[in-house]
Amino acid sequence: MAGLLGGLEAQADRLSGTTLAALLAADPARAGDFALRCGPLYANFARQRYDREALDALFAIAERADLAAAMRQLLAGEEVNVTEGRAALHGALRGPAVGSAFALAARAQALSTQLRMRELVDALAASDVTDIVSIGIGGSDLGPRLIVDALAQPDARFRVHFLSNVDGNAARRVLAGLDPRRTAAIMISKSFGTQETLLNGGIVRAWLGDDERLYAVSTNAQRVADFGIPPERTLPMWDWVGGRYSLWSAVGFPIALALGMDRFEALLEGAAALDAHALHAPLRDNLPVWHALTAIWNRNGLHASTQAVLPYDDRLRLLPSYLQQLVMESLGKSVRLDGRETEWHTVPVWWGGAGTDTQHSFFQALHQGTQVVPADFIGVARADHPHVANHAALLANLLAQTEALANGRDSEDPHRRYPGNRPSTLLLLDALTPQSLGMLIALYEHSVYLQSVLWGINAFDQFGVELGKQVANALLPALSGERDADDPVTRALLAELRGAAS
Amino acid sequence: MAGLLGGLEAQADRLSGTTLAALLAADPARAGDFALRCGPLYANFARQRYDREALDALFAIAERADLAAAMRQLLAGEEVNVTEGRAALHGALRGPAVGSAFALAARAQALSTQLRMRELVDALAASDVTDIVSIGIGGSDLGPRLIVDALAQPDARFRVHFLSNVDGNAARRVLAGLDPRRTAAIMISKSFGTQETLLNGGIVRAWLGDDERLYAVSTNAQRVADFGIPPERTLPMWDWVGGRYSLWSAVGFPIALALGMDRFEALLEGAAALDAHALHAPLRDNLPVWHALTAIWNRNGLHASTQAVLPYDDRLRLLPSYLQQLVMESLGKSVRLDGRETEWHTVPVWWGGAGTDTQHSFFQALHQGTQVVPADFIGVARADHPHVANHAALLANLLAQTEALANGRDSEDPHRRYPGNRPSTLLLLDALTPQSLGMLIALYEHSVYLQSVLWGINAFDQFGVELGKQVANALLPALSGERDADDPVTRALLAELRGAAS
Repeated sequence: MAGLLGGLEAQADRLSGTTLAALLAADPARAGDFALRCGPLYANFARQRYDREALDALFAIAERADLAAAMRQLLAGEEVNVTEGRAALHGALRGPAVGSAFALAARAQALSTQLRMRELVDALAASDVTDIVSIGIGGSDLGPRLIVDALAQPDARFRVHFLSNVDGNAARRVLAGLDPRRTAAIMISKSFGTQETLLNGGIVRAWLGDDERLYAVSTNAQRVADFGIPPERTLPMWDWVGGRYSLWSAVGFPIALALGMDRFEALLEGAAALDAHALHAPLRDNLPVWHALTAIWNRNGLHASTQAVLPYDDRLRLLPSYLQQLVMESLGKSVRLDGRETEWHTVPVWWGGAGTDTQHSFFQALHQGTQVVPADFIGVARADHPHVANHAALLANLLAQTEALANGRDSEDPHRRYPGNRPSTLLLLDALTPQSLGMLIALYEHSVYLQSVLWGINAFDQFGVELGKQVANALLPALSGERDADDPVTRALLAELRGAAS
Repeated sequence: MAGLLGGLEAQADRLSGTTLAALLAADPARAGDFALRCGPLYANFARQRYDREALDALFAIAERADLAAAMRQLLAGEEVNVTEGRAALHGALRGPAVGSAFALAARAQALSTQLRMRELVDALAASDVTDIVSIGIGGSDLGPRLIVDALAQPDARFRVHFLSNVDGNAARRVLAGLDPRRTAAIMISKSFGTQETLLNGGIVRAWLGDDERLYAVSTNAQRVADFGIPPERTLPMWDWVGGRYSLWSAVGFPIALALGMDRFEALLEGAAALDAHALHAPLRDNLPVWHALTAIWNRNGLHASTQAVLPYDDRLRLLPSYLQQLVMESLGKSVRLDGRETEWHTVPVWWGGAGTDTQHSFFQALHQGTQVVPADFIGVARADHPHVANHAALLANLLAQTEALANGRDSEDPHRRYPGNRPSTLLLLDALTPQSLGMLIALYEHSVYLQSVLWGINAFDQFGVELGKQVANALLPALSGERDADDPVTRALLAELRGAAS
């Protein structure tokens, strides 16, 4: 596999003296030819720093890696999570993309859970509960938080609040102003052993003063029962769904409460349509394949060490932190499936923020800094509000930034010189709906998986987070003064903490 | 100046085969020796990948660059913003650090504005206004937003809301649920020509239905008057304060409303104490100097292309995006004061998020990714809430992560191997108060300035954001269909937008 990406650097070297502006001048038809669409989701890659020959080389890699077969394996429920011996079948949560026996059985579990979720939503809607506190962290938090922030309406049946951080200030902030008699809470933890969620769940349970409005989502029914939440208020998860791919499962219970069950199912439908596209579209017409190849090109051809995500829609302001987890926890690996160190850099740092805010923040560095940052710009064509001048300004800025970053502008004053040649992809949604947002997220999920295939790593484990948990547990007695730490720096820090506390 | 940083790479090469664990084993006393304190703010640099010899080389650079003189120039109000012929005298907003005639005159203006601000806060407190909408973007938004989010209490006299993005969804979200008769709004724009703030100000003025509760903060009194806001509801700014350094000025009006004027002044006092420290502490005992030299070491010695900011306090969750602007807009330059291209990489990408949330998100990549990310961890020793077990868990995780990233752990299973050797700084506040937060922000401000001196660039201009604004204005007629765009990709995107809108 080491040779799989071997041709990339030669292509990048061939193009190293050629600017994006020159590539476009030589081949203006790429403006339309490097674009594709899947329903309401349009993508334009014309401002990436490859030409047709480099793209041919990239698609040849995609064929040699057999990305089409890899998509089938994922969606059929094969054990793509090799190090843990598991499937990664989030596809089955939203549609029967591939009719393997395992995928169909998973689909049946997913549908029966959706029915139970609808019953719980209906029952809560018939109660006098007005507010929901969703308690989870990481994969049990960022997905529901993103979707609720993006799509919940001000007149929704429930206000949904999210509590994740173990810092007690988080619980204090979330509970302030809520009425415990009219609040229900959901503890979401795949293992039901997550330190943060158990501690915050304990705080919320005591605050509620009554267990009747406490729900759980978990694979571990026994631990949920031990905590005191009965089966009728517990929704299941399965080991074939990874936390950061789980918003489509019962982890999406807060979404269903905030948006209503029908719109939650529309979100699933959008993702399912993208699944079908990923599975059936030829490589050259396949959005996740283009997106993944572009990521590999920027990382291993152009040696970009970061990737920006720049949604030009305030409702998508949490998308960068959602994708940070999805991409960096999935691809932040340096050991291949075969146990060898990778020869290639894997995931860059994914970061970003909502435009136009970020134009007044870090865009200075994007335009005139020494480091080139490839960016995904994300726009929404139709507005859902009456502020016409604002929407025109928003779209004009979106188009302007991608153009200015690509083309730059020369000047006699060196301080007013814009080098340009900074690559970006533009993703455009016709409108922001549950369907289109489901598609957008599924696009990133599948791009991430295909990148993992190209790098030969496992996108679905996360052993990197274990060591910190172990060290933290070992340090708790040192914090309470029962013993001292082994590490000299940790000892010095403990002394400062004790001094400050006294 | 090219030679100024010349010795760095040789030092980094000398240490390239030595791990952090080996450095600490060889010299455990660095755990205490590489630490310093300024009042309630403690910093430990022992887990950075330098040794005493490399530090000597760094401090020799600081002496050759005469960072002490640079600090005096800044705080005396000299024209450190060379390309625009201006001072950068945010120091005068919080104390008379250097008694130059210019600094003293600026200080007088600042104090008289503080008196007027106190009168306006008192008058609003005596009215029946309950909610404040602060309208600004970038430097007129991120600072107040950070401080209010960190320090406002649930029982504060006013609820303060922030409106920045030109996307009409932002205005819709902020105004939903507010009562226009009990809401006041503040338009903050240094030039009073900011597109976003004028458009959003227009929406809010129409929604208020009454101009009596509309305030402004600006340098441009004429434009404010033209918009219809009278002098008695306008607070001044000055060209000697840069937007991203302006939260200490009348831009902090929303802070004073949310926290009360006394706590706003305590914030200023904290920053003033750090100013005095930066000015008077010898280089080896000087926090901003250590911080700036560490940044240069990681960027130009170790070639780190990103820098993470990881506050372990939920109240500081907005600090990463605040620092993104402060650092990347200040240092995202590639042309030196003398007009030549830099030979060194300047600012890396600054990014991050609050712990423990981010442990369940991107920390996988920090521990096991192929790319080393230096990090500033920020902790708070004393809790202001009763959740003792949560606070212990928070601090245990903070200490554990810095230790695990530094030391790593070997394993027979390559997938469970932690390479370690990942550098971090730990910044510790005794408690989170207006004073300590003022100090923390001023530390970063001065570190940024000293980095700019070491790189020979101007930290106080931002010409990089101009091109995008010009292109956006030129594209507005193309969006409304009056003409077509020149760029072929922009034309293709406009066609898609028109198709989606119809």
